[in-house]
Amino acid sequence: MTVINRPADERETIEREAIERRIGTLIRETCGADPSLLGSDACAGVYADTLRQALTSSEGGKRLRAMLVMAVFDAMHDETLRDDEGAGTDEAASTRTLRDDVRDLACAIEVFQTAALVHDDIIDDSDMRRGRPSAHRALAETMRRSFDDVSPRFAASMGGGLGIMLGDLLATSSVSIVNGAASRMPDGAAIIDSFLLMHRDVEIGQVLDLAAERIDLNDTTSMRSNSLAVFRWKTASYTTIAPIRLGLLACGVDHYTARRLSERIGTPLGTAFQLADDLLDVCADPAVTGKPVGGDIREGKRTVLLADALDAAGDDDAAYLRRCFEAAGRDDDDVRRVIALFHGTGAVQRSRERITDLWRQSREAIEDSRRALRRPDRFATVMTDACARFIPADLRD
Amino acid sequence: MTVINRPADERETIEREAIERRIGTLIRETCGADPSLLGSDACAGVYADTLRQALTSSEGGKRLRAMLVMAVFDAMHDETLRDDEGAGTDEAASTRTLRDDVRDLACAIEVFQTAALVHDDIIDDSDMRRGRPSAHRALAETMRRSFDDVSPRFAASMGGGLGIMLGDLLATSSVSIVNGAASRMPDGAAIIDSFLLMHRDVEIGQVLDLAAERIDLNDTTSMRSNSLAVFRWKTASYTTIAPIRLGLLACGVDHYTARRLSERIGTPLGTAFQLADDLLDVCADPAVTGKPVGGDIREGKRTVLLADALDAAGDDDAAYLRRCFEAAGRDDDDVRRVIALFHGTGAVQRSRERITDLWRQSREAIEDSRRALRRPDRFATVMTDACARFIPADLRD
Repeated sequence: MTVINRPADERETIEREAIERRIGTLIRETCGADPSLLGSDACAGVYADTLRQALTSSEGGKRLRAMLVMAVFDAMHDETLRDDEGAGTDEAASTRTLRDDVRDLACAIEVFQTAALVHDDIIDDSDMRRGRPSAHRALAETMRRSFDDVSPRFAASMGGGLGIMLGDLLATSSVSIVNGAASRMPDGAAIIDSFLLMHRDVEIGQVLDLAAERIDLNDTTSMRSNSLAVFRWKTASYTTIAPIRLGLLACGVDHYTARRLSERIGTPLGTAFQLADDLLDVCADPAVTGKPVGGDIREGKRTVLLADALDAAGDDDAAYLRRCFEAAGRDDDDVRRVIALFHGTGAVQRSRERITDLWRQSREAIEDSRRALRRPDRFATVMTDACARFIPADLRD
Repeated sequence: MTVINRPADERETIEREAIERRIGTLIRETCGADPSLLGSDACAGVYADTLRQALTSSEGGKRLRAMLVMAVFDAMHDETLRDDEGAGTDEAASTRTLRDDVRDLACAIEVFQTAALVHDDIIDDSDMRRGRPSAHRALAETMRRSFDDVSPRFAASMGGGLGIMLGDLLATSSVSIVNGAASRMPDGAAIIDSFLLMHRDVEIGQVLDLAAERIDLNDTTSMRSNSLAVFRWKTASYTTIAPIRLGLLACGVDHYTARRLSERIGTPLGTAFQLADDLLDVCADPAVTGKPVGGDIREGKRTVLLADALDAAGDDDAAYLRRCFEAAGRDDDDVRRVIALFHGTGAVQRSRERITDLWRQSREAIEDSRRALRRPDRFATVMTDACARFIPADLRD
C-alpha cells in the first residue's frame, strides 16, 4: 500500500515524522564542521555544545508551517500522484524526488522559525520556550558547567553571545537548505528570493513589535493598526504566506501569481491565527496550553483586545486600563480585572468575530485561487483542511 | 578615455567610489518597505530609524574585501577588456554587465561584514565602531530621543533588540544581493552556496572567539591553535578566501578549483592580515590608527603574541603575564609592562616573521593558481598587488 492510500490522519503523522527527522539531518549537514579545524578541544567543544543546542531548540514545534507547504504541494499534485500509482514509472520516481525537495523547503521554514525564536527570546529576555529553557539560557548553563572558573554573570553574557550566533547560524542554515532544494527546481532564484523576503518581513515585524511597546494608550487606532501590522509582518509572513507561496512556486506557478494568491489566502489566515493566539492568553485553560493565563497582560502587551476594550469601556474602566498598562508591572488582581473587562466590554467577542470574518476571507481566496490555477474542487478541499488547522474549531463555522 | 586606460590609483579611487554608492543603493533596495504598511507613523518611524542606521553603520569601511573581488575579476579578464576596447561591440557591453554583477557580489561581502560587526559589538558590549557609536548604542540614543517617556535602561534594551534585528536585516540583505547577481551567472547555486558557507564560517569563528576567552593561560599550545582557528574562521573566511572564491566563480572557474585556490591563497593571507592587526595594537602610533594602544591587552585577549611571549619569557615574567591576564582588568602600568615584554621576549619579532612567512606562502599560491588557471604573468601581478594591501609594507619583502 502506498502512503497516498492510507487514511488522512495516518498520512499526516507519517509526514510530520518525516519532517521532524529531516530537520535534524539538515541542521547537522548545514552547520557541521570538522572538529580538528576548530582549535583546541575546549574550543571545538563549545561549538559542539552550540550545535547540540541548535538541535534541541529545533525540537517540539507543531510543524504547522511545514505541513502547510506539503498540503499546497499535494493539493496541486493530487491527480498526478494518483495517475502515477498505476504506472510505477520514472515519472512517479521524479515526482517523489520533487516532493522530497519540497519537504526541504518546508523544513527550512521551520529552521528559520527556530532562528527567529532564539533571537526573540534574547530580545525579550525570556527564560522559557516550548516548556524548556530558552536557547541563550541553556547555553549559559552549559558554559557554567563547562568552565569551572566562570562567574554566573560571565556565563549569562557568554550565553547571550552564543545565542545571537546560534540564531545567525540557523538563519544561514535555513537559506542553505533552500538553496540546495531550489537549485533543482525550475525557477530557483524566485524561490530563494521569496524565502529571503520572508526573512526580511519577519525582521521588519520584530522591529515594529519593539516599536509598538511605546504606543500611547490614548491612541487606540494606532494601537490596533500597529498590532495588525505586526501580525502581517511578524506572523502571517512566515506562518501562512511564505508556506503557500513556496509551495506554489515549487509546483511551477509563476512568481507573480504565487505572490498574489499566497497573500490573499495567507494574510487573513495568519492574522486570524495570531488573534486566536492572543485570545488564548485570556480564555484558555492553563492545564491545556501549558502557559499561565494572562501572560500578555502581565507583560503589558498592546493587543487588539486591549484596543477594543479601551474603545468599548466606560470612562472609569478605560482610565483603569490605561493606568494599569502604563504601570511598570501588573499583579494577579490586575490580570483578573483586565480579563473580566476584556470579556465584559465585548472585546473578546469582537476578536472572535474578527477571526470568523478573516477565516471566511481566506476560504473565499482559496476558492478564487482554485479558479485562477484551474484546479478541480479537490484543490479547495485539501487547501481548506490544511488552512483550518490555524483556526480554533469553534470559530470555523 | 576608458577607465581601463587610466593610471592604476585613479582607477582604484573610481572603483572604490562606485562600490560605496552601490552599497547604499543595494541596502535601500533590499531593506526598504512601504511605510503605509508598517502600522502607525510612530512604528513606521522606528523602522525608518533602523534603516537609516543600516546605512550609517555601512559607511566608513576601507572596502578592502570588495576591492579584492574586483581585482580577481580584473586579473582574470584583463586581456578580454583590452581586446574589447578596440571592438566596442556587444561583447564589451556584456563584459561591463558581468562586471557590474561582480561588483554586487563585492558589495554583498561588505554588507555582510557590517551585519557581523553589528552583532559583534552587541556581544562585546562595544561603545564605538569606526570612530562612531556602535549601532546598538546609536539606536538606543535614537529611541531615547524619539520617546520622551522611556528610561535610559529601557532605551538601552530597545537599542540592543533593534541592533540584533539590524544585524539580521543586513545579513538577509547580503544574501538577497548575491541571489540577484548570481541568478545572472552561469553557476549561480555554487556562488550562493559559497556565500552562505562564508556566513557560516564567520558565525563559527565568533563562537570559537567567545570560547577562546576561557582558555587556560598555562596551555600556550591551545592558545595559539585557538587564535589561528579564529583567524581562519572569523577573519580569513570573509576577508580573503570568500572574495577570491566568489571572484573566480563569477569568472566561470569550477567550484572545486575556486575553493582550492581561494583557500590556498586566502588562508595564509587572511591569517597574516589578522596577525598584523594584533601587532598594530602593541606597535602602532595611536595618532595614526585612531585607537588607543594596548586595547587587546586591556581586554585580556588571548593572542598569538601572548602565547609566544609566555613561551619565551623567564619564570618571573611568565608568572606576571599569567597573573595579569587572569585578573579582572589591566591598568596603564600593566599595558606598558606587557608591551615591553611582548617586545623583550621576541614575541613581536616572532609575529613579524610569521607574517612575512605567510605572505610568502600566499605569493607562491598565487603563482600556482596562475599556472592552474593557465593565465599570463599579468594575472599574478594584478593578484599580488591586490593581496599586498592586506599586509603592512615593511613586512612584504
